[in-house]
Amino acid sequence: MLIRPLGERVVVKATPTEERTKSGIVLPDTAKEKPQEGEVIAVGSGRLLETGQRVPIDLKVGDKILFSKYAGNEVKIDDVEYLIMREADILGVIE
Amino acid sequence: MLIRPLGERVVVKATPTEERTKSGIVLPDTAKEKPQEGEVIAVGSGRLLETGQRVPIDLKVGDKILFSKYAGNEVKIDDVEYLIMREADILGVIE
Amino acid sequence: MLIRPLGERVVVKATPTEERTKSGIVLPDTAKEKPQEGEVIAVGSGRLLETGQRVPIDLKVGDKILFSKYAGNEVKIDDVEYLIMREADILGVIE
Amino acid sequence: MLIRPLGERVVVKATPTEERTKSGIVLPDTAKEKPQEGEVIAVGSGRLLETGQRVPIDLKVGDKILFSKYAGNEVKIDDVEYLIMREADILGVIE
Amino acid sequence: MLIRPLGERVVVKATPTEERTKSGIVLPDTAKEKPQEGEVIAVGSGRLLETGQRVPIDLKVGDKILFSKYAGNEVKIDDVEYLIMREADILGVIE
Amino acid sequence: MLIRPLGERVVVKATPTEERTKSGIVLPDTAKEKPQEGEVIAVGSGRLLETGQRVPIDLKVGDKILFSKYAGNEVKIDDVEYLIMREADILGVIE
Amino acid sequence: MLIRPLGERVVVKATPTEERTKSGIVLPDTAKEKPQEGEVIAVGSGRLLETGQRVPIDLKVGDKILFSKYAGNEVKIDDVEYLIMREADILGVIE
Repeated sequence: MLIRPLGERVVVKATPTEERTKSGIVLPDTAKEKPQEGEVIAVGSGRLLETGQRVPIDLKVGDKILFSKYAGNEVKIDDVEYLIMREADILGVIE
Repeated sequence: MLIRPLGERVVVKATPTEERTKSGIVLPDTAKEKPQEGEVIAVGSGRLLETGQRVPIDLKVGDKILFSKYAGNEVKIDDVEYLIMREADILGVIE
Repeated sequence: MLIRPLGERVVVKATPTEERTKSGIVLPDTAKEKPQEGEVIAVGSGRLLETGQRVPIDLKVGDKILFSKYAGNEVKIDDVEYLIMREADILGVIE
Repeated sequence: MLIRPLGERVVVKATPTEERTKSGIVLPDTAKEKPQEGEVIAVGSGRLLETGQRVPIDLKVGDKILFSKYAGNEVKIDDVEYLIMREADILGVIE
Repeated sequence: MLIRPLGERVVVKATPTEERTKSGIVLPDTAKEKPQEGEVIAVGSGRLLETGQRVPIDLKVGDKILFSKYAGNEVKIDDVEYLIMREADILGVIE
Repeated sequence: MLIRPLGERVVVKATPTEERTKSGIVLPDTAKEKPQEGEVIAVGSGRLLETGQRVPIDLKVGDKILFSKYAGNEVKIDDVEYLIMREADILGVIE
Repeated sequence: MLIRPLGERVVVKATPTEERTKSGIVLPDTAKEKPQEGEVIAVGSGRLLETGQRVPIDLKVGDKILFSKYAGNEVKIDDVEYLIMREADILGVIE
C-alpha cells in the first residue's frame, strides 16, 4: 500500500535515533525526544503558485532529511508509521 | 440526494476503523479516535486563484484518502454522515 | 422588501429542522441546534479578485444549500429571519 | 459640515429602531441593541487593488443598508452621530 | 524643524476638543477622551503596491481629518505633540 | 567593524535623550523611556516585491529619524549599541 | 556530512561569545545568553516568489552574520551544533 501525497506534501519515514544518557544508559522510547531525521518516501506534485504554476518539490525519494520537531501528521499504513508534512517543514537534506 | 461541494471542497465518507487494544478487545465507539481514512464521494470545481484561473481538484470520486483528524464539517444526508472538507485538508491518496 | 447582498455575499433562508430525540420527543426550539440547511434567496455580484475581475457566485436563487453552523449575520426583514453569509461559508448544494 | 470618507469607507447614518417587547413596552435607549440598519450619506473613492486599480464602491448616497453590529467608527459632526465603516462591513442594500 | 513621514504615513496635529458635561462643566484634560479630529501637517510619498507602483496619499497639508482613537505614534518636536499615522487610520476629511 | 543590513533593514544609532522632570531633575538612565530618535548608519538593499523588483530604502546614511519605541533588534559592535530595524518601523525623517 | 538547506534557509554555526560579568568572572555556559553572531556554513537556493522567480540568498559561505536571538532550529551533525534559519531572520553581515 502506497501513499501519494497531495500538492506540496511529502511522506517521510522518521529515522529512529538511539539516545544514550551521559552515563551510557539507553533511554526507553517514551523518554526520547521525537526524531528530527528521516527519509523521503514519496513527494507530491509541488506547491501551486497564485499564477497557476506548479513548483516541483526540491526533494527526491530516498533523500535523508532534517525536519522540525512535531512537523507533519502521523499516519499508520500496514502497521508502519509515517509522517506527511509540507515541504516548508523540511529544513534541509543531509548529503 | 446528492451534494455538490463548492469550489475547493470535497465530500468524504469516513471509513470506520476497527480498533482493538493489544489484548484484542474491540473498543466501543466512544473510545475510538475519529477516523483518518475515507473515500471521496464528490469533488468541487476547484480552487480559484487570484488570476481568475480555476485549478481542478487533484482527486477523483472513489479515491481512498487520508485526512487530518477533525478536518471538515460533518453533515448528515438521508441518515448517512459525510464530511465536507477543503482539498488542503487532505494529506494524500492511498494507492 | 428585498435585500441585495453586496459582493461575495448570499442571502439565505434557513430551513427549520424537525428534531426528535431517540425516544421520539420533538425538542422545543431552544434545545435544537441551529439549522445547517437553507435556501438561497439572493446572490451578490461575486467576489472581486485582486486583478479587478469579478467572479460570479456559483449559486442561484432557489438552491438548497448546506452551510457552516453559526455562519453569517442574522437579519430580520418584515418579521422574517434571514442570514447574510459569504459564499465561502457555503459548503455545498443539495441536488 | 460634510465628511469625505477615504478609500473603501462609507459614511452611514444609523436608522433608529423602535423596539417593543412582546408585551408591547417600548424599551428605553440603553436596553436596545445597536441598530443594524442605516442610510448611506457619503461614499469614498473605492478600494485600491494591488494592481493600482480603484474599484468604485457598489453603493450610492441614499441607499438603505444593513450592516454588521458594532461595524465602523462613531463620529459626531454638528451634534449628529454617524458611522464611518468599510464597504466590506456592509451586508446588503434594502430595495 | 520638520518631519518628512515615510511611505503611507501622515503627520497630524490633533485638534484639542473642548468637552463639557451635560451640566456645562468643562472637564479637565485627564477626563477627556483622546481627540479624534486633527489637521494634516505633512504627507509621505504614498503606499507602495506589490507591482512597484507608488499611490499618492489622498490628503493634502491643511486638511481637517477624522481619525481612529489611539491611531498613530505620538512624537514631540520642539515641545509640540504630533501623531504619525498611516493613511489607512484616517477615516475621512471634513469639508 | 561595519554592519551591512540585509534587505529592508536599516542600522540606526539611537540618540540619547536628556530628560528632565518638571522640577528640573535629570533622570538616571533606567528611569528614562527608550529613545525614539536616531541616526541612520547603514541601509540595506531594499524591500523585495513579489514581482522580483527591489525597492531602494527611502533613507540615506546620516538621516535623523524617528522610530517606534522598542522597534528593532539591539546589537553591540565594538562596545557601541546599535539597532537594526525594518524600514517600516521608521516613522519619518527630521529635516 | 553536509546539510543542503532548502529554499530560503541558511545553515549557521553560532560563534561562542566569551562573557564576563563586570567583576571579570567568566560565566558558565548555562548563564550566558544565546549567541547572536555566527558564520554562514551553507545557503539554500533562495526564496521563491509568487511569480515563480527564485531570488538567490544575499549571503555567501563564510559570511559573519548577526541574527535574532532564538532564530532558527538547532540541529546536531557529527556532534557539532548548527542552526538552520530563514534568510529573513538574519539581520546583517559584519564586514
